[in-house]
Amino acid sequence: MSLITIEKKVLEANNSIADENRSKFKEKGIFSINLISSPGSGKTSLVEQTIIHLKDKMKIAVITGDIQTNLDAERIDKFGVPVVQIITNGGCHLDASLVRNAYKEIENEDIELLIIENVGNLVCPSEYDLGENHKICVMSVTEGDDKPLKYPLIFHHSEAFVINKIDLIPYLKCSLDEMRNNAVKVNPKLKVFSTSCYSCEGMDEWTKWLFHQCRM
Amino acid sequence: MSLITIEKKVLEANNSIADENRSKFKEKGIFSINLISSPGSGKTSLVEQTIIHLKDKMKIAVITGDIQTNLDAERIDKFGVPVVQIITNGGCHLDASLVRNAYKEIENEDIELLIIENVGNLVCPSEYDLGENHKICVMSVTEGDDKPLKYPLIFHHSEAFVINKIDLIPYLKCSLDEMRNNAVKVNPKLKVFSTSCYSCEGMDEWTKWLFHQCRM
Repeated sequence: MSLITIEKKVLEANNSIADENRSKFKEKGIFSINLISSPGSGKTSLVEQTIIHLKDKMKIAVITGDIQTNLDAERIDKFGVPVVQIITNGGCHLDASLVRNAYKEIENEDIELLIIENVGNLVCPSEYDLGENHKICVMSVTEGDDKPLKYPLIFHHSEAFVINKIDLIPYLKCSLDEMRNNAVKVNPKLKVFSTSCYSCEGMDEWTKWLFHQCRM
Repeated sequence: MSLITIEKKVLEANNSIADENRSKFKEKGIFSINLISSPGSGKTSLVEQTIIHLKDKMKIAVITGDIQTNLDAERIDKFGVPVVQIITNGGCHLDASLVRNAYKEIENEDIELLIIENVGNLVCPSEYDLGENHKICVMSVTEGDDKPLKYPLIFHHSEAFVINKIDLIPYLKCSLDEMRNNAVKVNPKLKVFSTSCYSCEGMDEWTKWLFHQCRM
């Protein structure tokens, strides 16, 4: 029982810092997204392709969370955008306080789009508001078309769902329609994109939508 | 601070029930494994193939955990082995108490190998002892060869690592050697298998090792 109480307090404290982050981002004219997925769905590749498609149109920065290593920040650093690596040392999700501290490292930068790449975990990050405008769920087609039904929370909370690695469809039993339909069953308002970071299929549609969201 | 204390108490309480589970399984002559992976690495397919390969040699039962749905239990039920579905309703891992309760449903069965399929999450289940003999980490090649470095805890705790979906290697930038090497860097004692549940490559080696572990 006491655990439940404390857990609530943790979430309340997190939400309060998330609101501060949101106010600060708004004041600075920053639109922010929180990318959530399992490990290996291609979040970092999606961030790379998003930067390639949008960097001439708007100023982008990235905060990337990992349990260990700064491999993701090294990959993103090559694109010449401000990037902060958060290493959680075992922590299974980012929280608003970690994002607040990470943002301090880049608060003097001129940023229009802040991409927050969460720890690879389809479950726990769903519950933590970071102060972002939109949560975006990413899933690789290799994960199977039944997964939106099995991990519904993140689909409830997301504004958009990026189905990634669609170049692998010919080699899988996964149905893209079934994956999309299962996601929309959970959240009928979900905007669904299908992308490949290898062939770049679907990348224009995703980045145009994202650009439009930032400028709305 | 208080959260840390309570979290420790939660883990201590869990470990105490895990020890009870372990004693009970030993008394009943049951060898048990706890399969841990991200969503969509192919855990359920691996369970199916393991049953196909071993069911004539030994009596198998399955406890399968999911956040929502009983799709996995329905799949396994077709193989005619006792199966219990745990639905965690949002919970990000199985704990020893859930396994104790699930086992009560099948305690009158004659079981030699109990396969516990955890919730799809590469992070949180790593910390929870269920009373199993071995934790087994499963990862699909589509998740990328850097992942053992980024999610080291489960590799530390596992006896074996099953690299699954190797039939997809020709279509990926993933190196099997690199994935194996990264895992062994984290845990040099790790036994590594490479499998495909489509082509059945590697399945003999994995199931022979598992059979031998049960009979040791």
